[in-house]
Amino acid sequence: MASFSQIIHAKAVQIGKLSVQATTAAGSGHPTTALSLGHLTTMLMYHAMRWDLTDPGNRGSDRLVLSEGHAVPIVYAACADLGVTFLPGGKARRMTVDDLMTLRAIDSPIDGHPNPMVGFPFFDAATGSLGQGLSVAGGLAAAARVDGIDKVIYCVIGDGESREGQIWEAMDFIADHKLTSVVAIFNCNSIGQSDWVSHAQSTEMLARKAEAFGWKVVTIDGHNPTEISAALEQRKAAVAEGKPLCVIAKTVKGWGSPTNQGLGHHGTPVAAKDLDKVLGELDQTAKELGATGISADEINKALTIQPPLKAPAVKVAGRPRTFQEAVEKAKLGEALAKNKLSPRRAFGLALEALGDSNPNVVALDADVKNSTFAQDFAKEQPSHFFECRIAEQNMASVGVGLSAGGKIPFASTFGKFFIRALDQIEMGIISGANLKLVGTHIGVTLAADGPSQMAIADVAFMRAIGHAKDHQGNAAITVLTPSDAVSAYALVLEMAAFPSAVYLRALRAETVSLYGDNETFPLGGFKVVRKAAAGKKTLVIATNGYLVHTALSAAKKLADAGIETVIVDAYCLPFEAAELLKLAGANGGKILTVEDNYTGGLGSEVAEQAARTAQVKVESMFVENLPKSGKTPEDVLTYVHLSEADIISKATRFVG
Amino acid sequence: MASFSQIIHAKAVQIGKLSVQATTAAGSGHPTTALSLGHLTTMLMYHAMRWDLTDPGNRGSDRLVLSEGHAVPIVYAACADLGVTFLPGGKARRMTVDDLMTLRAIDSPIDGHPNPMVGFPFFDAATGSLGQGLSVAGGLAAAARVDGIDKVIYCVIGDGESREGQIWEAMDFIADHKLTSVVAIFNCNSIGQSDWVSHAQSTEMLARKAEAFGWKVVTIDGHNPTEISAALEQRKAAVAEGKPLCVIAKTVKGWGSPTNQGLGHHGTPVAAKDLDKVLGELDQTAKELGATGISADEINKALTIQPPLKAPAVKVAGRPRTFQEAVEKAKLGEALAKNKLSPRRAFGLALEALGDSNPNVVALDADVKNSTFAQDFAKEQPSHFFECRIAEQNMASVGVGLSAGGKIPFASTFGKFFIRALDQIEMGIISGANLKLVGTHIGVTLAADGPSQMAIADVAFMRAIGHAKDHQGNAAITVLTPSDAVSAYALVLEMAAFPSAVYLRALRAETVSLYGDNETFPLGGFKVVRKAAAGKKTLVIATNGYLVHTALSAAKKLADAGIETVIVDAYCLPFEAAELLKLAGANGGKILTVEDNYTGGLGSEVAEQAARTAQVKVESMFVENLPKSGKTPEDVLTYVHLSEADIISKATRFVG
Repeated sequence: MASFSQIIHAKAVQIGKLSVQATTAAGSGHPTTALSLGHLTTMLMYHAMRWDLTDPGNRGSDRLVLSEGHAVPIVYAACADLGVTFLPGGKARRMTVDDLMTLRAIDSPIDGHPNPMVGFPFFDAATGSLGQGLSVAGGLAAAARVDGIDKVIYCVIGDGESREGQIWEAMDFIADHKLTSVVAIFNCNSIGQSDWVSHAQSTEMLARKAEAFGWKVVTIDGHNPTEISAALEQRKAAVAEGKPLCVIAKTVKGWGSPTNQGLGHHGTPVAAKDLDKVLGELDQTAKELGATGISADEINKALTIQPPLKAPAVKVAGRPRTFQEAVEKAKLGEALAKNKLSPRRAFGLALEALGDSNPNVVALDADVKNSTFAQDFAKEQPSHFFECRIAEQNMASVGVGLSAGGKIPFASTFGKFFIRALDQIEMGIISGANLKLVGTHIGVTLAADGPSQMAIADVAFMRAIGHAKDHQGNAAITVLTPSDAVSAYALVLEMAAFPSAVYLRALRAETVSLYGDNETFPLGGFKVVRKAAAGKKTLVIATNGYLVHTALSAAKKLADAGIETVIVDAYCLPFEAAELLKLAGANGGKILTVEDNYTGGLGSEVAEQAARTAQVKVESMFVENLPKSGKTPEDVLTYVHLSEADIISKATRFVG
Repeated sequence: MASFSQIIHAKAVQIGKLSVQATTAAGSGHPTTALSLGHLTTMLMYHAMRWDLTDPGNRGSDRLVLSEGHAVPIVYAACADLGVTFLPGGKARRMTVDDLMTLRAIDSPIDGHPNPMVGFPFFDAATGSLGQGLSVAGGLAAAARVDGIDKVIYCVIGDGESREGQIWEAMDFIADHKLTSVVAIFNCNSIGQSDWVSHAQSTEMLARKAEAFGWKVVTIDGHNPTEISAALEQRKAAVAEGKPLCVIAKTVKGWGSPTNQGLGHHGTPVAAKDLDKVLGELDQTAKELGATGISADEINKALTIQPPLKAPAVKVAGRPRTFQEAVEKAKLGEALAKNKLSPRRAFGLALEALGDSNPNVVALDADVKNSTFAQDFAKEQPSHFFECRIAEQNMASVGVGLSAGGKIPFASTFGKFFIRALDQIEMGIISGANLKLVGTHIGVTLAADGPSQMAIADVAFMRAIGHAKDHQGNAAITVLTPSDAVSAYALVLEMAAFPSAVYLRALRAETVSLYGDNETFPLGGFKVVRKAAAGKKTLVIATNGYLVHTALSAAKKLADAGIETVIVDAYCLPFEAAELLKLAGANGGKILTVEDNYTGGLGSEVAEQAARTAQVKVESMFVENLPKSGKTPEDVLTYVHLSEADIISKATRFVG
């Protein structure tokens, strides 16, 4: 009878061979990285993890986050061998080895890197842009804690990948919150893409770093089943110490195939002509390990997969309190009456209201909760609040993990600081994550703090992705820029109810309320906040955020000068620009867009629609020079040529 | 006679009081953070640093990078006290205490956070978006190494800020390259913005982490002049060990003013009514330390600033070899003849040519140099090449530091991975950095690797900033997407010669050469690669990169169907879209834009221009669904509705 180790070796060789075959069939991919993970993958997927092959996305199951996404052929190989359910063409069935050979094909769910939304629910998140998986694992662990479920989240990270700072943000986050359900496994095959990994990413250095970050560290031979088993067993001791477990696994890139080891084999499939030779090398390795001639029956008996835990029940959301109720609860009636309520304050109220009514809502902060007003939620819902400190990339990816864990994660910080997490946000969108991002202190009207704190390059990026449809057919991300507290409150509730990603931009400034309590703000819509008097020269001014107020003020002076303006609060991107064109058609045929961000936002949205038919003229005003500090919003608006006087001047020339 | 410590205390109190006064005058800012740095700033700026008050940007001087930019009032206060040269309104003069009181005003160079380009050359980079300064310091140190100058770069980092992963990327980078001219000083005042810092950012944990990252660590009382002196002296021992020095300085937020200590004082200026009281507390603290009644003369005598080292000479660039010469040198003539030369390969050739001709060019890589072809430069110019490993945020900010050190930094990686560094890039642009970014493997035609590796959200962001003028009056960043090896080569040379930031997107795919060797590609221009035959229905198709080839192929079939097309290679954004409109005016009055990225790029550029006059109609094709892996570029182009057939269909309907 074969030993347990021999059985693991046999399986590792089997799925290793499949990985090699699949990448050769695909003509691209990373077989040598896959081979370095043969044993670890086998130990996790065939033995340690509690999960259901027919329901791989089950939220009661242990999870595997493959942060070094390019290693994915080894996981696909295991899934093909196990017959895991996947969704080719949207229809669920069990995966076969033939399916594995469709790796990277356009009609296959077996994407080049983990990509759950194309039909592979075993994964919780798209990975491959490196350094993000451990944060996702942290988010899954946070969701499990909220649900009170004791599942384990394994995360495999490459040694070269561990150079990404986000890994260390995640190491801090997980240790800080004692999310001991996470097991981080560093796959140390010592070779990056273009060279050996740095000394800084050696097993010794990684172990020292992980210890310094407060983790319990075990260093093992990642091809030794006994050592892997013993390492995973250490989680209990780690939990007792209140520390998450970090396994530093020494592995061999191209394990089992001597001709594929050393430099020069990263991301290089075995040529078809060499395939038999390489598979033979793997067989020879198996033989040397006494891992040949074991019957499938014996292997299957030894490798039994335990079922998942009971999945947490889906919780039903109640009705959040209305804006007026929220204002009363917070005793802000007087502030509101005095127009002393900022959109960011309204966000805080709405988040608090969601916390009281929707048990699925969780919140993340990057040490600015007293500025964003996420602090009220933090105080009232401590079990649903996760302080991420000053580490926005980790915060975004934790949100992805929380979403995969069934939560509605509201992550908030200054809008400017989401810019450093745009790749993580994009990966979250690819993952189908229900991200709710709230960026405060937006635009140049932040003024005094200067350009290092101003979100003005955020809009173009978000709107660009927003014009792609996500896997549900929604705008992949919707961008909201409310102009007052009423609309900010309403839009936060809208975004919570919408099933796709949304980014809301909340002004720091206190603004005059433009809307009554019963006004609704559908996503994709806009509001006319001023109509034109008949019989005069007319112009439509479309704007949003702070500048709605500037435009309304300009409108009065323009009217005095004989120019009537329709003022539109275009609070949403993408939006029904065609409807705006109709409005312009009936009001002079000209639209002036005004926004205090760089181009690529509202002006582009309207111009793109208008240029299709060339019937309405569009001029746009946006930030065309690099801003600086100024004591007041008006100082900086003047500096970037977006003051009331600039609007009046531009509108006057445009109307002609 | 006062002791040296008493003199430092006296000066720390003096500039601390000025910081408090300045923030009160501004009505915003961070006096308590400033107070925590009083002694460290004094020790550095009045004693340790070798620099020239009248030439604070001198490249022979020691540098101070204030990574926690919000602490800047303490540096401004020192500069006002010292009479450092700054440039209000662009004119150089010595700063006064009155100038200090203009903090954060729109017409003052004393911005809310360090912002050298508005007239404060003491700083090398804009900071304030946290976590970036240590990388900038690494870049300054790398430049100093290239120049063979032994200057010291001090970098002050907040304890809360050290949660940012980029700090740890920089710790790795600096230790890896033994850039021992950097001294990292962690200002551990133990209070973040909204709370006490995490245990993970305690002095003990930071010290353990820094040691684990390979630094020599000294923990001191950051208000004890003797300890600060001794700590800075440790750099010699650190250098001998081949390690950079890390000083963990325990400080007090609101030092010297008991009523401004503890939570609740971050970013909060002292109210005018409380100012005298707080200044009195600081005087009282000085008194308790025996630091009152010391004459200005005695202080000045004790605090003598040593002059800078000799600044490195500016080096003159020669003529880089031509494309044809480069092809010959690399023996790629046959590949070129067979149309087997990719734009990324051409980038590698051009970078190598720049290395041979321009001693100011340096290159950075993120462990993909074998894919980007930066490896040839790496081999030939090892002293000018800095491997950054898989840490793109650090790479971008190291580029900012290299630029401040007088270099022309070419940083290259997959275009997708620059997205995680967009905030760093934006901060670099604000800093006036001469960044040369080359993103390879762009667009959906990367195909097999899938969306985690595809740069398709990059264009909108870059173009948006590109429509703002930088401090030289240039596009703040120019986006280049060449369609073949010839234009890629030429554009890399163009970008090297241009003094502002440029982002070049280089295809992975081998493409047919469209241009002769003598073709020029001015920034802001475009190329007509196919003209329309007269007398037929005509349409202008504007595109770039891979899709130029697809459009050319579609053009033939459209011609067969009676539709003549002008094909435009719009390789640059922003560009002279008005010229394109003229061309369209003479060719049917319609433009179809085609690009394999999300919207916000070429289509928006053309539509914005067209919508101004509403005389030319513009339809646009771009990526409107989330891509996935496919085996060939055509598979994925079809998946995202950008195939040749899609172009033909859209063009046919558009022409009508």
